[in-house]
Amino acid sequence: MKKYVYIFIWIIIIALLHSSSMAANQWGTGALMVIIERESSSVVVVDSLRHEILGRISDLGLLHHATISFSHDARYAYLVTRDGWLNKLDLLSLKCKARTRVGESSIGLAVTQDNRYVAVSNYKPPDVKIVNAETFDIVQVVSTHKEIEGKKIASRAIGMVDAPGNLLMFSLMDTDGIWVVDADRNHFPVIKKFWDIGRMPYDALLTSDGRYYIVGLYHSPHIAMLDTWTLDDIRKIPLEDALQKTPKKGVRKVPHLEGWAMANNSLFAPVVGEERLAVYEFGTWKLIKSIPLVGIPMFAMSGPDGRHIWVNFSDTNHRYLQIIDSLNLEVIKTLEIGDRIFHMGFSPKGKSIYISSYGENKVVVLDTKSFLKIREIPVQRPSGIFSTVRAHMMGL
Amino acid sequence: MKKYVYIFIWIIIIALLHSSSMAANQWGTGALMVIIERESSSVVVVDSLRHEILGRISDLGLLHHATISFSHDARYAYLVTRDGWLNKLDLLSLKCKARTRVGESSIGLAVTQDNRYVAVSNYKPPDVKIVNAETFDIVQVVSTHKEIEGKKIASRAIGMVDAPGNLLMFSLMDTDGIWVVDADRNHFPVIKKFWDIGRMPYDALLTSDGRYYIVGLYHSPHIAMLDTWTLDDIRKIPLEDALQKTPKKGVRKVPHLEGWAMANNSLFAPVVGEERLAVYEFGTWKLIKSIPLVGIPMFAMSGPDGRHIWVNFSDTNHRYLQIIDSLNLEVIKTLEIGDRIFHMGFSPKGKSIYISSYGENKVVVLDTKSFLKIREIPVQRPSGIFSTVRAHMMGL
Repeated sequence: MKKYVYIFIWIIIIALLHSSSMAANQWGTGALMVIIERESSSVVVVDSLRHEILGRISDLGLLHHATISFSHDARYAYLVTRDGWLNKLDLLSLKCKARTRVGESSIGLAVTQDNRYVAVSNYKPPDVKIVNAETFDIVQVVSTHKEIEGKKIASRAIGMVDAPGNLLMFSLMDTDGIWVVDADRNHFPVIKKFWDIGRMPYDALLTSDGRYYIVGLYHSPHIAMLDTWTLDDIRKIPLEDALQKTPKKGVRKVPHLEGWAMANNSLFAPVVGEERLAVYEFGTWKLIKSIPLVGIPMFAMSGPDGRHIWVNFSDTNHRYLQIIDSLNLEVIKTLEIGDRIFHMGFSPKGKSIYISSYGENKVVVLDTKSFLKIREIPVQRPSGIFSTVRAHMMGL
Repeated sequence: MKKYVYIFIWIIIIALLHSSSMAANQWGTGALMVIIERESSSVVVVDSLRHEILGRISDLGLLHHATISFSHDARYAYLVTRDGWLNKLDLLSLKCKARTRVGESSIGLAVTQDNRYVAVSNYKPPDVKIVNAETFDIVQVVSTHKEIEGKKIASRAIGMVDAPGNLLMFSLMDTDGIWVVDADRNHFPVIKKFWDIGRMPYDALLTSDGRYYIVGLYHSPHIAMLDTWTLDDIRKIPLEDALQKTPKKGVRKVPHLEGWAMANNSLFAPVVGEERLAVYEFGTWKLIKSIPLVGIPMFAMSGPDGRHIWVNFSDTNHRYLQIIDSLNLEVIKTLEIGDRIFHMGFSPKGKSIYISSYGENKVVVLDTKSFLKIREIPVQRPSGIFSTVRAHMMGL
């Protein structure tokens, strides 16, 4: 009898310890950095104020080109894998709480303005899946296609963003369209379809004020822009200079539109295949300047204060970052960070920048004012860096 | 002996239950709404996605004109009371974790860009106190004054904001100045002092891109603006029309500059003492329109998407809200919400708006697209509403 009492005590102690360890996992979720470990099916979660690893979530599938959006309370990271798995990562327990297959080849996602749904754009099958964020059931499939003479031409869906008015916007890569879905209404109707926006949209962004949906086009010398308030028509903005001047080098990656920085009322656009950044005045779209760089730019990113533009490179100068002053449009620093710099992310309010060096298994943290190194964090083959600050940013 | 074993078991069970209840207090902190209960020395913490009260933190002192800034991870709310107590509220345990007396009469606060310090501007004594956010020690006192012919003229400090470059900016109410402190350097030196900015600054704001510090002046017909990137000189922007046209009514409160909304490249400014809102084009500062209202506006606020401007009133029409379309600048709705509407706050990405009705002990939640009521939350004498979204917004 007494023996059972002691066993009982032990069970309670173990439960207590377990419970305590649960309780210990308490942190504010507003300043977390989720970093993709590209080759090991895992992500690392970092406290971006103390620059310390909180833990790792594993067994997430193929993470090439994996991307993340967050629930608005910054508790959950929704991660979509290239092979079509949508994962719901709990940033407190550091566990994968749910997963569902949304496609065979997925490319982007967004959380609706009401925080209730996650929408994923797919290459294959060519569609958009809308998932209930709570139950993780697929509640709607939007088949993406164009009808031409009674025939349905299917198209890959890209450039998924959430927009004001609880809308979703995405583009049809193979049929040159932009569609708008109303997530406030039953069955998520497509309320607008725009066609002939230019040839082969490949990525899109929402301006940080939520106002404009801007689409990059592979085979047209303009960008397409939709006013998310009026939804009236597509404005085609010529960016000829950026696309046509100097002879193009081989491009390893087409720049994401996330790689188009906006600061100081200007758009900083990596020029496809060339060693420069084009700077346009926002609104008039005049080319203000073409900034020569040490390599072919991949991402041009500005922190929340817009003070500098940080650029990494897709070609042989992949060890470097260049920093451009948003005010005088000059390169003010060239820093060697490490082998194969893949991505960047900023801490809340932008005091520090996180930089992934895929080749050297590390994330380097710099102070954005002094440009000095604060920390190196060991991360296996890091690629994308996603701050929970994005939970509150429209279009991300 | 056996009796002690059972007592021991009971102790463990109680500890376990306690521990479990701790573990249960787990939530993402990105979408919390902290609402001041003005007369009962308490705040209510609400989940702004589910619109449910999570709990209450009490014994916080005099909360008239209490204001809040957040740590960047959104775990802590720093609340400064009118009588000079700075409180550190833990939004997970829902306890006041630390408090320190920073003055006898305090008016505003900001968290530095590096998240390490909380700066409080005081009426009395006339100074700025800088507090270590971790230890809660006062690490620096900046005495606010102007030297005139060898004599120090003390001034109340107002309009405290954090700014890019880890700077702090505030204004000197009685000596017409703007000071800039560098929080990156030892002893927080005042690196810039601007004088003669206009007569009697009373409040200030930082534009949401962090670029401009804008100061409202009680006795001058302009606003003062400082470029936070160049810190070169003060631009004086005449807003004559807003201050001089129609006969003024009695004003119960001078509008906070937080009550100046920015959306659609326009500034929406409540006109002191008049029943209208002045709309200026940002940059050119031309008066675009004067919008007649049903009362004297107190706050004009826009959600994160800028689609509408929401206005409450300080006079007899305090039961109403008016909603202005940012696009055509017309009042599109007049809603009766409840007695003495004091303040408003938006859920992340702005799908819902929280409105405090001081007189009816409730916070009303509306959908920002349909304008329909989603919920009423019982709150005792609610005044200020502060979303943790502010944790990531420069100048808040």
